[in-house]
Amino acid sequence: MRVVRAEPLEAFAAAVLEAGGLVPEDARLTARSLVQANLRGVDSHGVLRLIQYVRTLQAGAVKARPTVRVLQADTVTALVDADGGYGYRPARLAMDLAVERARLHGVGVVGVRNSHHFGMAALYVIPPAEQGFLAVMVTNASPLLAPAGGREARVGNNPWAFGIPRRPPARPLVLDMALSQVALGKIRLAAAEGRPIPPGWALDREGRPTTDAAEALRAGLLAPAGGYKGFGLALVAEVLAGVLTGSPFGLAADAHGRPAGGVGHLALALDPGRFGPREAFLDGVERLASDVLATPLAPEADRIELPGDPEYRREEERRTHGIPISDELAGQLVALARELGVTPPAELG
Amino acid sequence: MRVVRAEPLEAFAAAVLEAGGLVPEDARLTARSLVQANLRGVDSHGVLRLIQYVRTLQAGAVKARPTVRVLQADTVTALVDADGGYGYRPARLAMDLAVERARLHGVGVVGVRNSHHFGMAALYVIPPAEQGFLAVMVTNASPLLAPAGGREARVGNNPWAFGIPRRPPARPLVLDMALSQVALGKIRLAAAEGRPIPPGWALDREGRPTTDAAEALRAGLLAPAGGYKGFGLALVAEVLAGVLTGSPFGLAADAHGRPAGGVGHLALALDPGRFGPREAFLDGVERLASDVLATPLAPEADRIELPGDPEYRREEERRTHGIPISDELAGQLVALARELGVTPPAELG
Repeated sequence: MRVVRAEPLEAFAAAVLEAGGLVPEDARLTARSLVQANLRGVDSHGVLRLIQYVRTLQAGAVKARPTVRVLQADTVTALVDADGGYGYRPARLAMDLAVERARLHGVGVVGVRNSHHFGMAALYVIPPAEQGFLAVMVTNASPLLAPAGGREARVGNNPWAFGIPRRPPARPLVLDMALSQVALGKIRLAAAEGRPIPPGWALDREGRPTTDAAEALRAGLLAPAGGYKGFGLALVAEVLAGVLTGSPFGLAADAHGRPAGGVGHLALALDPGRFGPREAFLDGVERLASDVLATPLAPEADRIELPGDPEYRREEERRTHGIPISDELAGQLVALARELGVTPPAELG
Repeated sequence: MRVVRAEPLEAFAAAVLEAGGLVPEDARLTARSLVQANLRGVDSHGVLRLIQYVRTLQAGAVKARPTVRVLQADTVTALVDADGGYGYRPARLAMDLAVERARLHGVGVVGVRNSHHFGMAALYVIPPAEQGFLAVMVTNASPLLAPAGGREARVGNNPWAFGIPRRPPARPLVLDMALSQVALGKIRLAAAEGRPIPPGWALDREGRPTTDAAEALRAGLLAPAGGYKGFGLALVAEVLAGVLTGSPFGLAADAHGRPAGGVGHLALALDPGRFGPREAFLDGVERLASDVLATPLAPEADRIELPGDPEYRREEERRTHGIPISDELAGQLVALARELGVTPPAELG
């Protein structure tokens, strides 16, 4: 295990992405987003992705130099064209446009068409929530969930992220959840280590519950969170992020592999000050937060946390002590860097 | 078991509610809504509620003759004051105002302040979806869910309902889900019949999983759907429907018992025609729906259904054959009717 500080890791990731073909602005934004995910403990959306992104860009399956532009800009809605590139820049632009509209009219809803993977969804709702706006970001993704009774995936495990402003110094409430019971990454890890997975995580190729991690990976069928409820919310996301924005959806959705764009996103911002005094809203959120934190503990529980708190805690630790990178991943990143003529930071080996 | 047709049941329910103190308009709307829930098979939100509603109105805990009014009406937002009455009329008004705004600007978001129970959330999203609008309705409710690690409820099992337009004659996709793994009514039923409940439904008073239905009722702690994800979405609903609208929330939320109003609601309507051609949107939804329905079946599964389909199927059956009412409920309704001087329909006994 190596430990790398955020700054050199981000500079390294930006250099790799630029060598992989991204324009410097996109390389920097994507690198910052990946390292932000590592800092928050969401390693599945961290620098691990550099390998996948570079290979995908090299294959031309995602456009390295897209022309991101605003296709339509109305009073409270807008539509951004990602032009077949990754989702980082267009999704951020969409949320900025939504906030601009919410500032003027109370609400903004902005879609992104023909995009790809945009990383950790929380990335997009934290900045608006820090500016005082309720924010929602939803995306579709490659198929991973089957409907109840089915044995083939039809919708992605489409994450929804919600950001709720709090009074500083408290940081926003952040709920960022994919709609599978657990992330695919946890099943990959169990398969790699030859461990079984708990019941309720995944299905086999016949659509039956399985505890065999390798079979679960072959089937590519995750169990929806909360059964039909998770599937239903993922289907709604498929409509909001995919169908509504004019992007690929359902069986055609592909977060990593269509030069014309494989998924879509939808951003919503809401100004709480439109419905009553802003201070009363912030008082209410603080009251709700403190009541939740003061819930008497169940036996064996050692603390209660608000949505987003584990990630803030992790971020503080990792900003101070660095980001742990497995030897295996470090080796892969160094090999990739060499291939691209990029010098890896000393800590990577 | 009795079977009662929808029309006489609705007329009866309206007469009971009017005798219980509601103005005729509210009595008719509430009666239609309750019977609509029975038709759809959601008996927990059907005429069973007449007893609770009449007792609550008699106790003055919910205002029988509220002055529902629009407090604020802006370009794309608005706020309705329910004035401490039930939520049926104000929630419907809120969705109408949201649709009016969505028609003009693409989006409308309207809150309801100081309301109470509004019945089945699907009621509010089906009409706008039939008019071509994406619709969302969310409410908060009396506390029933504890945060992970806690042993007291802090938020309601706050339903979210989504309505998605389809091309007629197909009816809208409707996802109406509370955020507990199962409805409280299923646990009440198991307790009444002395049956244990499956693991994963509820917690005991110490916050530990239990299969004892009676203990689960005493604890009043339902397991959130999908663990922290369900709790998180319920917390977001508490903010959107409660805090944002200036209504009671969290520990103070009470769907049935505060004369000044005990919960709030939030309605959102979105015009898909703002993001691209309406026909392309409808084509996309049909494609997604037919791909989901065509998923190969898992062993032992006999069909795949879209969100809302089981309820449409039930509605068709019950419109034709009538609504089953247990002997016990029939007896209670007849006794209530006698007390109020209302003549029950012959089928109730």
